[in-house]
Amino acid sequence: MEIAKPYLMFLGDVHDQLAAKTAQGVVDWRPDWCVGQLRLPGCKADCGLKDVSIDEAVKLGAQTMVVGVANAGGVLPEHWVAEIVTALEQGLDVATGLHKRLNSIPEIADAAARHGRKLHDVRFSDQAFATGKGTKRPGLRLLTVGTDCSVGKKYTVLALEKEMVAQGLDAAFCATGQTGVLISGRGVAIDAVIADFISGAAEWISPANDPKHWDLIEGQGSLFHPSFAGVTLGLLHGAQADAFVVCHEPTRKTMRGVQHPLPTIQQVIDRTILEGSLTNPAIACVGIAVNTQALGEAEAERYLAAVTEEHGLPATDPIRYGVAPIVAEILKQFPR
Amino acid sequence: MEIAKPYLMFLGDVHDQLAAKTAQGVVDWRPDWCVGQLRLPGCKADCGLKDVSIDEAVKLGAQTMVVGVANAGGVLPEHWVAEIVTALEQGLDVATGLHKRLNSIPEIADAAARHGRKLHDVRFSDQAFATGKGTKRPGLRLLTVGTDCSVGKKYTVLALEKEMVAQGLDAAFCATGQTGVLISGRGVAIDAVIADFISGAAEWISPANDPKHWDLIEGQGSLFHPSFAGVTLGLLHGAQADAFVVCHEPTRKTMRGVQHPLPTIQQVIDRTILEGSLTNPAIACVGIAVNTQALGEAEAERYLAAVTEEHGLPATDPIRYGVAPIVAEILKQFPR
Repeated sequence: MEIAKPYLMFLGDVHDQLAAKTAQGVVDWRPDWCVGQLRLPGCKADCGLKDVSIDEAVKLGAQTMVVGVANAGGVLPEHWVAEIVTALEQGLDVATGLHKRLNSIPEIADAAARHGRKLHDVRFSDQAFATGKGTKRPGLRLLTVGTDCSVGKKYTVLALEKEMVAQGLDAAFCATGQTGVLISGRGVAIDAVIADFISGAAEWISPANDPKHWDLIEGQGSLFHPSFAGVTLGLLHGAQADAFVVCHEPTRKTMRGVQHPLPTIQQVIDRTILEGSLTNPAIACVGIAVNTQALGEAEAERYLAAVTEEHGLPATDPIRYGVAPIVAEILKQFPR
Repeated sequence: MEIAKPYLMFLGDVHDQLAAKTAQGVVDWRPDWCVGQLRLPGCKADCGLKDVSIDEAVKLGAQTMVVGVANAGGVLPEHWVAEIVTALEQGLDVATGLHKRLNSIPEIADAAARHGRKLHDVRFSDQAFATGKGTKRPGLRLLTVGTDCSVGKKYTVLALEKEMVAQGLDAAFCATGQTGVLISGRGVAIDAVIADFISGAAEWISPANDPKHWDLIEGQGSLFHPSFAGVTLGLLHGAQADAFVVCHEPTRKTMRGVQHPLPTIQQVIDRTILEGSLTNPAIACVGIAVNTQALGEAEAERYLAAVTEEHGLPATDPIRYGVAPIVAEILKQFPR
């Protein structure tokens, strides 16, 4: 899946900013790819882009309209369908992370066929993958893992990409989730792949590369999550991670969506090394990324100092303090 | 997926017995469900059933024609399509484990719609599952795990079902693979499920049951297989196995399809307990099933004695010596 850039961000008429979370993620990390935002009357979200019409977006060079909003129930309102059809007629491709497939809506499928435009449903994967080979391939790979789902695994790799590129390293974000695919313009929502092909899809996401190149692979789920650990393990095996960063949210009491308690950071380090060594015996932890949003400044600093001390590895909050300490550890363990 | 019984077994005109492996599996384990076999001119396979026409099969009460053969390339030859259409016209449902979906073939889809018959593509799963809950549910569950793929996991649970039922226990085979689904008439090919729902599908396969009831769940892959471990882990978490049996083939040098060496039986026991305890902390090994086909009689006996001694658990070859020792161990650890 390769999505043509730049994007027009479609925000519809959603009722709050949270509903535009996906769009905001794209704007945060790829501002240069966003020529503007299209908002319908009544829209309460704002990604801080210039408000433009489809026509203006086309003139600004937009190639794809990204429907980066989630509405209640995941259905596509009639009046959004009309806007999508207009975009296709004006020569844009359309990409969404909605639960409903664009080509399951006859008006949209017809318009796309008539105008030769592409429809990208990033929540689905129709691609045929090979099963995982398990053979080591050239290039360096870092994977984020977590004590739970939704603890900052995507944010952390994107922050690492920014910092590593700023330091002159050859590094690229590899998306494995729907928002990530829109941010990257490429990738696969790995939880949407047929189970037999999880590790094969992970190998496809991060193919053989230059020996000094870092693929920074967005992690998914947790080896300790009873709903999703299979995805996490297949991704770990396919990624053949040389390095990993543990992501953690210190105030969470139970794992997302279930009653299970969170594992400790040390348990995640140990289990990731144990399982990851099947396809890369040299796998090593290079840091801990903590989402300290719920902690005060002093408390966050104390917490990070304690985690650093306990594990002998840099612990930081990528949003609050950046990821420079983790990049330093990467360069220590993997010299340029 | 519930497949109506009894079956007419369609063998087509395949060139050897191996091509009818799936059909043979159904005949071996569910002879009472098979009213006969349909062979086309030139067929070299024989499942030992009475040769019947579609018409005769219908008179014998057949409800479903099972296409239990694999032909080169997985495509469906024209003349097979004609037979399938005839079966649908005569009032039979059709079930296959082929790579091509029956309803992707217009003549077959049309005939099924016209006559109100069901098409079962057991290699695919279109069913919507919930994500795994991870909450313990009533009933007892045994899962087979393996040092590799294709080491007898299905055969072992089917043998256990036969022996446990013979001993008056309440036990039922739960299928997780395509041949298993045809043998069971129910189940899901778990490797065909969307990755997010592996453990959820496993929970669906083996729902809450009577506290003394044993679900005997067909295992898949291996926690040590770099291509498929994600499926194995999701299945283990969803199964919430109380008991497990390790299946092993002692002469294999590398894991199926890859270059990785096989893990030891002890490694599989340890890893299964480590990972399985996430959803069932009481998980325990109850035996080892060894495929000794490649060993002579004396060698097989020596090998099984050594494995029994090493692990303090019954080791047997289900085909050569039956599974009574494993059932005895189950009853020791889980008294009636």
